[in-house]
Amino acid sequence: MSSEFVFIDSLRALASDPAARGLMDDTAVLAMGGTNLVLTHDMIVEGVHYLATDPPEDVAWKLVAVNLSDLAAKGARPVGALLGYALGEADWDAAFVKGLGTALASFGLPLLGGDTVSMPPQAPRALGLTALGVSDVAPSRTGARPGDLLWVSGTIGDAGAGLAALQAGRHEPAELIERYRNPRPCLEAGQRLAPLVNAMMDVSDGMLIDAGRMAAASGCAVAVELDALPLSPALLAEAGDGQSTRLAAATAGDDYELLFATLAEKATEILALAEEIGLPLSRVGRFGEGNGLTITDHGESVPAPEKLGFEHSL
Amino acid sequence: MSSEFVFIDSLRALASDPAARGLMDDTAVLAMGGTNLVLTHDMIVEGVHYLATDPPEDVAWKLVAVNLSDLAAKGARPVGALLGYALGEADWDAAFVKGLGTALASFGLPLLGGDTVSMPPQAPRALGLTALGVSDVAPSRTGARPGDLLWVSGTIGDAGAGLAALQAGRHEPAELIERYRNPRPCLEAGQRLAPLVNAMMDVSDGMLIDAGRMAAASGCAVAVELDALPLSPALLAEAGDGQSTRLAAATAGDDYELLFATLAEKATEILALAEEIGLPLSRVGRFGEGNGLTITDHGESVPAPEKLGFEHSL
Repeated sequence: MSSEFVFIDSLRALASDPAARGLMDDTAVLAMGGTNLVLTHDMIVEGVHYLATDPPEDVAWKLVAVNLSDLAAKGARPVGALLGYALGEADWDAAFVKGLGTALASFGLPLLGGDTVSMPPQAPRALGLTALGVSDVAPSRTGARPGDLLWVSGTIGDAGAGLAALQAGRHEPAELIERYRNPRPCLEAGQRLAPLVNAMMDVSDGMLIDAGRMAAASGCAVAVELDALPLSPALLAEAGDGQSTRLAAATAGDDYELLFATLAEKATEILALAEEIGLPLSRVGRFGEGNGLTITDHGESVPAPEKLGFEHSL
Repeated sequence: MSSEFVFIDSLRALASDPAARGLMDDTAVLAMGGTNLVLTHDMIVEGVHYLATDPPEDVAWKLVAVNLSDLAAKGARPVGALLGYALGEADWDAAFVKGLGTALASFGLPLLGGDTVSMPPQAPRALGLTALGVSDVAPSRTGARPGDLLWVSGTIGDAGAGLAALQAGRHEPAELIERYRNPRPCLEAGQRLAPLVNAMMDVSDGMLIDAGRMAAASGCAVAVELDALPLSPALLAEAGDGQSTRLAAATAGDDYELLFATLAEKATEILALAEEIGLPLSRVGRFGEGNGLTITDHGESVPAPEKLGFEHSL
């Protein structure tokens, strides 16, 4: 067990309040005034979650977007954010604020407060954002049941391919790099889906690892159909279709799409909603009795890859 | 203007929502479900806000206590916290969690969620805590009026003297060092005072600088009487009484006491409350027309020291 898991386990012992959802749900959900207050806090660290050479406007965007993606998965309407900011070089800071303004305006998210600190010279910086929202429903990741369908929104693997291109020193395909640098939290879809689903979470660490986590949290098994994964034309043009592309897409992470479970009889309603909001919602698997993750491609069993996604979370 | 002030000014332009209180109030106050949700986020950085050699249990305590002190100043009852934690050495992390547990239990504060991240090797760590509470009143720091009395809770200067002792390589007086390492947010006093005050904030950066900030935010002048400052027997034994001790106490910071303004006719009620809750509440000055801070000692004018306290804030 990694030191991070030991640490989070020790925190879990302190988080017995039901609103903490056992630190398993990316957000805290606190009943308040007849609705639910949904809270999330994410940190990003220079050299770990972003590079010093990344455009500061994009770092700001991503900090906002990853937090809002957690709110989206609880069907929440964002109501505000608090920023924890470690000051750095003045031009970088100014560009960060510009990007922050763009992101806040784009999502209609008020900046409510926070803290600004200085770091020791040359230290890599850590930035944090707390986002809060309200949601009448706030589905957890624990509600999937045997027989439920597994769905994912949008397309997956684009951000991972964009990152791979950047790491290879390329600056295209622009559409994939954009998906990596400027993820779009599925706020409207989350709000519309929340009353219809049995469980929902966002895909941040990789679709396979996140599907496995939803199944484990729900006490179910899950079977994922690789051939059903929604891939974008840009990704198919970049990587070609095939099992290796699909496994890469399903383990790459940074998608910030919604992963959700519904009763089988909701399928028509989900597909109609997809039409209405103009966002693909694709059936990619099914929950079953037992536990564990199985993978198929055109009906044939596929061994699970060693790395299902990124192993970090709280 | 320091780069931090430039930065905060640029953030202020993004924080136009009334709940942000112009980023002037240490907390955000959001009307919700018939009450007010009060939110604060503070970060602490290794080598800046604490030393790598500080006991991790105390670092955890302080991170919780400084956030709760902001809630106390809004009369809020704490309802939960989210932790942003950068992992370090496993023993240090385990001791931090122990201290966190002690602090959370002591204040009845549920841990609701957060984020855990890894840092690059050898990097100083940044830790953040978001605390939320509810308050029916939530006084701001802007409501003081000419003629109002200025009050402070408890005793001031103890933490500053404790820090000075530690910096001189001493491990006593224990009572003063305890005040520095384990500040106690005035939660009960804040809740009881909130309906009685015109303005309230906590003293974190120094009583003089914070009194000046309250006056400036309220569009008033303020006169502080050094001879009225409440000093503890431990501080008087350590430093002796006199103007230099009193100026040091009023500028040292880290007190985490409550500083508040009331109508003059509330004095009897405030003093009765002090008796009831067993916490001294001392009248230390008065607000007036105009602007600026003046200081007296036994009725004689005292020039304002060059450094009124710590110049950092959001």
